[in-house]
Amino acid sequence: MSEASFFGDLLQTIAERGRRLLALGGGDGGARPQDMRTLCDTLLSSRGEASGIALAKAVLDRWTRASEEERRDFMTMLLEQYGPDEVALGQAIAAYQAAPSPPTAQALHGASESRRLELLRRLNLAPEGMSTLVRMREALLRMKADAPALGVVDDDFAHLFTSWFNRGFLVLRPIDWATPANVLEKIIRYEAVHEIRDWDELRRRVEPTDRRCFAFFHPRLIDEPLIFVEVALTTTMPATVEEVLDPARAPIRAEEANAAVFYSISNCQHGLRGVSFGNFLIKQVVEDLRRDLPELSTFVTLSPVPGFAAWLARETQGDGSPTLSAEDRALLAEADDRGWVDDEAKVERLKPVLTRACASYLLNARNPRGGVADPVARFHLGNGARLERVNFLADRSARAGRQAHGMMVNYLYELDEIEANHEAFFARGEVVASSSVRRLAPRGRPVTADATPAR
Amino acid sequence: MSEASFFGDLLQTIAERGRRLLALGGGDGGARPQDMRTLCDTLLSSRGEASGIALAKAVLDRWTRASEEERRDFMTMLLEQYGPDEVALGQAIAAYQAAPSPPTAQALHGASESRRLELLRRLNLAPEGMSTLVRMREALLRMKADAPALGVVDDDFAHLFTSWFNRGFLVLRPIDWATPANVLEKIIRYEAVHEIRDWDELRRRVEPTDRRCFAFFHPRLIDEPLIFVEVALTTTMPATVEEVLDPARAPIRAEEANAAVFYSISNCQHGLRGVSFGNFLIKQVVEDLRRDLPELSTFVTLSPVPGFAAWLARETQGDGSPTLSAEDRALLAEADDRGWVDDEAKVERLKPVLTRACASYLLNARNPRGGVADPVARFHLGNGARLERVNFLADRSARAGRQAHGMMVNYLYELDEIEANHEAFFARGEVVASSSVRRLAPRGRPVTADATPAR
Amino acid sequence: MSEASFFGDLLQTIAERGRRLLALGGGDGGARPQDMRTLCDTLLSSRGEASGIALAKAVLDRWTRASEEERRDFMTMLLEQYGPDEVALGQAIAAYQAAPSPPTAQALHGASESRRLELLRRLNLAPEGMSTLVRMREALLRMKADAPALGVVDDDFAHLFTSWFNRGFLVLRPIDWATPANVLEKIIRYEAVHEIRDWDELRRRVEPTDRRCFAFFHPRLIDEPLIFVEVALTTTMPATVEEVLDPARAPIRAEEANAAVFYSISNCQHGLRGVSFGNFLIKQVVEDLRRDLPELSTFVTLSPVPGFAAWLARETQGDGSPTLSAEDRALLAEADDRGWVDDEAKVERLKPVLTRACASYLLNARNPRGGVADPVARFHLGNGARLERVNFLADRSARAGRQAHGMMVNYLYELDEIEANHEAFFARGEVVASSSVRRLAPRGRPVTADATPAR
Amino acid sequence: MSEASFFGDLLQTIAERGRRLLALGGGDGGARPQDMRTLCDTLLSSRGEASGIALAKAVLDRWTRASEEERRDFMTMLLEQYGPDEVALGQAIAAYQAAPSPPTAQALHGASESRRLELLRRLNLAPEGMSTLVRMREALLRMKADAPALGVVDDDFAHLFTSWFNRGFLVLRPIDWATPANVLEKIIRYEAVHEIRDWDELRRRVEPTDRRCFAFFHPRLIDEPLIFVEVALTTTMPATVEEVLDPARAPIRAEEANAAVFYSISNCQHGLRGVSFGNFLIKQVVEDLRRDLPELSTFVTLSPVPGFAAWLARETQGDGSPTLSAEDRALLAEADDRGWVDDEAKVERLKPVLTRACASYLLNARNPRGGVADPVARFHLGNGARLERVNFLADRSARAGRQAHGMMVNYLYELDEIEANHEAFFARGEVVASSSVRRLAPRGRPVTADATPAR
Repeated sequence: MSEASFFGDLLQTIAERGRRLLALGGGDGGARPQDMRTLCDTLLSSRGEASGIALAKAVLDRWTRASEEERRDFMTMLLEQYGPDEVALGQAIAAYQAAPSPPTAQALHGASESRRLELLRRLNLAPEGMSTLVRMREALLRMKADAPALGVVDDDFAHLFTSWFNRGFLVLRPIDWATPANVLEKIIRYEAVHEIRDWDELRRRVEPTDRRCFAFFHPRLIDEPLIFVEVALTTTMPATVEEVLDPARAPIRAEEANAAVFYSISNCQHGLRGVSFGNFLIKQVVEDLRRDLPELSTFVTLSPVPGFAAWLARETQGDGSPTLSAEDRALLAEADDRGWVDDEAKVERLKPVLTRACASYLLNARNPRGGVADPVARFHLGNGARLERVNFLADRSARAGRQAHGMMVNYLYELDEIEANHEAFFARGEVVASSSVRRLAPRGRPVTADATPAR
Repeated sequence: MSEASFFGDLLQTIAERGRRLLALGGGDGGARPQDMRTLCDTLLSSRGEASGIALAKAVLDRWTRASEEERRDFMTMLLEQYGPDEVALGQAIAAYQAAPSPPTAQALHGASESRRLELLRRLNLAPEGMSTLVRMREALLRMKADAPALGVVDDDFAHLFTSWFNRGFLVLRPIDWATPANVLEKIIRYEAVHEIRDWDELRRRVEPTDRRCFAFFHPRLIDEPLIFVEVALTTTMPATVEEVLDPARAPIRAEEANAAVFYSISNCQHGLRGVSFGNFLIKQVVEDLRRDLPELSTFVTLSPVPGFAAWLARETQGDGSPTLSAEDRALLAEADDRGWVDDEAKVERLKPVLTRACASYLLNARNPRGGVADPVARFHLGNGARLERVNFLADRSARAGRQAHGMMVNYLYELDEIEANHEAFFARGEVVASSSVRRLAPRGRPVTADATPAR
Repeated sequence: MSEASFFGDLLQTIAERGRRLLALGGGDGGARPQDMRTLCDTLLSSRGEASGIALAKAVLDRWTRASEEERRDFMTMLLEQYGPDEVALGQAIAAYQAAPSPPTAQALHGASESRRLELLRRLNLAPEGMSTLVRMREALLRMKADAPALGVVDDDFAHLFTSWFNRGFLVLRPIDWATPANVLEKIIRYEAVHEIRDWDELRRRVEPTDRRCFAFFHPRLIDEPLIFVEVALTTTMPATVEEVLDPARAPIRAEEANAAVFYSISNCQHGLRGVSFGNFLIKQVVEDLRRDLPELSTFVTLSPVPGFAAWLARETQGDGSPTLSAEDRALLAEADDRGWVDDEAKVERLKPVLTRACASYLLNARNPRGGVADPVARFHLGNGARLERVNFLADRSARAGRQAHGMMVNYLYELDEIEANHEAFFARGEVVASSSVRRLAPRGRPVTADATPAR
Repeated sequence: MSEASFFGDLLQTIAERGRRLLALGGGDGGARPQDMRTLCDTLLSSRGEASGIALAKAVLDRWTRASEEERRDFMTMLLEQYGPDEVALGQAIAAYQAAPSPPTAQALHGASESRRLELLRRLNLAPEGMSTLVRMREALLRMKADAPALGVVDDDFAHLFTSWFNRGFLVLRPIDWATPANVLEKIIRYEAVHEIRDWDELRRRVEPTDRRCFAFFHPRLIDEPLIFVEVALTTTMPATVEEVLDPARAPIRAEEANAAVFYSISNCQHGLRGVSFGNFLIKQVVEDLRRDLPELSTFVTLSPVPGFAAWLARETQGDGSPTLSAEDRALLAEADDRGWVDDEAKVERLKPVLTRACASYLLNARNPRGGVADPVARFHLGNGARLERVNFLADRSARAGRQAHGMMVNYLYELDEIEANHEAFFARGEVVASSSVRRLAPRGRPVTADATPAR
């Protein structure tokens, strides 16, 4: 990583010099709209590269120090002031309409490009450009909630990030106990599925002989994982989180394992929302593991079911659920009080009905756009995995109780069927499932729910 | 570099698997237009990432093995079949015209984007995607000479490469005698200014204590320099190539030097034509050298004057050159026979007049677009350098004789003036020159030549 | 580090093969004396290298699993059975005495070499040979307390380690927050001066802009620091540990500092006792820091005084201390109860007398061998440092209270005087001290104490 | 490698400082015996480490610049002036004789150690210490030819090098076309078996898919291979060099190969003569190749027979060779004129008899010490290989003609027999050979030749 930091230093130095020459005031300049406007216009007009780097740095430094209000002003400015040149666009439209052809279409595409896009590209020249732009979009996503018009600006960010984070640029790295601490602390921070409380727990996730962790990195976001997956090497397909994370468990040698269990996948950068890495990650990790451990034959997840409890609540409230019998719905009322997990009798009663309901949810529930309702299911099924098994009381954490009454799911990546499963899912909307899951919940017509929690 | 190759291997493996599943036929498939069309359409439509990588690889493999004719057919197909969706574009135009606003402008920009662009982005998923696309554009640039309509396709390539080769992604690396041989052989191959005949000569360029070489690399084009510069550390500003490259010269210690001479800058990838690296390269190398060798105070080039001889021929042919006196023009006729360099008397006579003419060319000649005529001058002046000295009989090679009657130029990078020079050049078209050069050729009105050799 | 582990893997593989062929039983073999004897004899006799690696591994594996008693038996065996060949030695003595000459002296040296030494060299062939031998010596040092005869074996270990850990083989590496976690956890574990309680505290020691840490490593003990030093970059010479380690302190930029304070030096490997690294470490770190931060002009320690309290107890018990006045001795009785640090009045009274006594101890106290009594003083003075300042209530930890009544010392490394100070110390036993320290305690005749705590 | 050079820089800096303080005169000091004596005595007596590094550097610098005569004086000084302290040695002998015991034996070993050894250890402190000492021994080996008394000094060098180049410190690295040029040029230079004429030929040895090269390196001799082996991946056991090195041959994919042919092994450092690496190298390369290419089942050499021609000359000169019939001896006279290789009839006649004679030489010829006469055979048989096949006209180079009438040999490393072969060779002096070789030359009683060429 030293090359990268060396490189960062140099960019820094070049920017410093440029800044001095331009008397940009660097650290001390304010972020008032008119100042930012001047800087951005100069950046767009400047043909001098040295001043380009310095100007980009000046804009980003001011943004970093700006108040929330100044930041919103900046975004509004990007929205309103940095669209395409309307006159030129009008002319390009006229030319295209007069003679539609590849050159006039391309000219129209050029003329319709917002000046925002080029501004963002030039901001990327600054030494810390990429990471500041990612953080800038984080802020923008928050603002968008109250100011949906900013969605246009957000689309420009998303467009650029999709190009810059093209899978061809990503590098997969194993994460283990010999990984630099500044990366490991981010694994602790970003773990989104099964919380890592401290360094000892982290160590249990990455150091034992039967544990693996992999992350994607981007050459310009050194030390910042983009997404990571935690893997347990086992001899059976696990049915509960406990058996995977039990601190007292005796590790096995990697060569003894025949299954690789993906039990946690976490996206790290909110600012990259919508740029998809997970599919590539899983497939590359599978290849990587197979190469090192040829005995591995089963690749399977142990995954949460984040939308189950909310769906179930809706199903049991109404009176005519198409997927649940009246009897089941009565029994399920017992699940409302979370104390049931400690009551053996209730556990016994709820086990079959919750399992059936969960299978039903995964097989039949659809979101308003017609897609599979559960976001995690949508992700793995879309990757070509098969819904293999539904696990009762598989995660006793408060969150899993709240979201899924403790249910978890195994999705199986059967290498020779991935392609076919994928096609079945996308072409025909089919949820490929094992026969045992299918037996649990005879497929009705898919049912559309009206909201899905974000993954 | 092993990480990169490891990474390449994995992509390869993933692609292999995908290919097998899809029965794409890999190596054996032909490149007939209809086959390529099918593959490209599938690639654009496919939502499966595994098949995405395999499809991209299939297209690029077929391209690599295709005949010249098949390749032209492919490009024509890109031009004609992969423009924007005309219906959608028409609707977007209508919507924008009905209500011009950021969202409708952005939607118009999206609708006017050619499907080509997305196709090229997806081709980049293949393990060797980037380098094949660069070679593909090399071929395209050749075809364009006969088929100017392909310029539209070329613009799409250029657009993507500008984004992918954003300076923020480039890495500067010193090149020396401990550099891997597979990189060094490319330095030999790509050297475009002063030929490197063999490994011994290469060694003399990169190993001595008073020699440096730097190149930009891109993370996805491992082992492929994009541009490189060769530097001599000296105690004086050299006036001839001979004193720089003399094999018998005694190297000095780097700490003794006070000048860094950039005597050769070579672009390596024809396929990246139009993506500008040189300006960044020089500035970063200056910073790098200053950090390691704080004694360095002079940063200067020893550069060719590729357009001089052609310009001079035109000036002397006509009868009313605004920059040359009739007497000078008479004398210059002697330069037509290259044998003059061995005739002391002729050398004496030609020295002042060639020197004056060269200064005049650099100061006053303009190309049809109004820019400085000489491409190398345009490059360095545009970077903020100053035209410092014109050197007579500075390069005795055949090429330099043909292009510039052996003249060479020193451009000086005076760090504290770069910004001002740059502004003077771009804002007012001013050629900043030392007083000694200015004395040689009193500035007349700029003179427009009708052609400039490519740099 | 991957190369090293790759390399380890290979050695492992080779050893496995050898083991299988030899039916050594690997993991399951016992460590009974006769078994170990056979293995060692075979290892010494074997001319086959493959079996050499396997045999070495077998011996070391059994040692690792052996009971304390078996380990002692093994050491006793090394002592008694693996001396030189007595007959050959007798002949070599006779030959030398008959004709003393370089060849006969050299032959005598060869004949007197114990077979132990060669055995230890061959044990080093095993993949984990070096680290197991270091741990073996740790155990040996413990045994030596009860079995001083084993000192002969220990001397052989020390002899080999001195050669294998020759300073020429050591590599200095900076330790920071980007260092691999498996190295950082060893910094936590080995810190011997100011305890590091957890990862947050570690982070405060290595991450801030004004903190540095450096360690020596050996190519065959990857991930195992041998010795490390913690450095604070400051603008003044600190008088207390508190000001250095205060978690609430605001870091300064490294460029603002003019002093580098070595506030903690810890040896990591008990098994390498007697192999000296500290002197090289400090000097190399000074050079390293000066190169990166040319503004640094002061290099100074903040060091404990581990022998002070014990010495003072002896001085105040007797009735005729040559270094303390009766009045001072009366006052010093107050220091026996550690509660004094919270009693302002006592603090006031003790400050001058403890400071004087400490200066007196450092300047005048000698150990039975005539050396400076305090081991830390001996180390830094021996390196050429100057005793610069004695600091009252500089470390409020329990340990520092117990060992030194809270006193600490600054030793100054004045680069242009190191050599002269070093000579003064070794040639004339002189304690080079600042005039202010010398004023505190007029030098009497050096006083020999009868015991020194180990450093 | 940058870490190493960084490290070298630091040592350099430290040494510079020390040198200045000591006024050692560095570059300008002479190498007169009395000066060297003073420096060496100071180095041995000095307890100051900073001056230790500087002194070591001063001695080595002067050695490097010394004349041949001064160098011989220096070695003579080492021989005569730096033996053990005779008085102390006499006392240690007396103490041992009075009471032979581990401590007195160890004390004797210590007292008999020459001061030379410690001096050489301290010279190793200098930044370039190790490599200068290796070159120093190169010179010493040359001197020894005329001054056999220097053998005592040489033994001390050999003793230290054996410890410092313990196999545990060596690192195996693949050599390929991406290896740094400064390492590759050493492969060209050191290739001792089949000359590499230029960079193109080197490239053919290391770049094709069916070629491999591996070298051992030592951490303190960066960029200096110690020994390397060139490997061809093939589908058959080759019988001639031509088929291996043919520039026109079509490379196969590595995965198609089932045999790895070691066709060239070269030691690189004359100064390390007697320190054995080859055995370890071959075994580790075998393991490495098997891991990467599990299809490989045959590991075999194509080796020269350097002693054959000389042996044959002796056998045919005398009149009663025990291994050759009179008829054969008559025929073999034809081989004296090298022109026979172009005379088909002679080739036909010589083929059976040369083949038989070569088998006989390898199976039966012994050197005066009773070992197998041919040094290459001794090496591979000692490693546990089997003499597999004798190849007629296998190397048409002048050297091979001169040394072996063009004969070459395949030695087979049959993994499961290596240990047994090794034991047979060392314990019973048995030359393990294939039945086809044994049939060629019924084993007579081994025959002792009186000289062997150096390997």
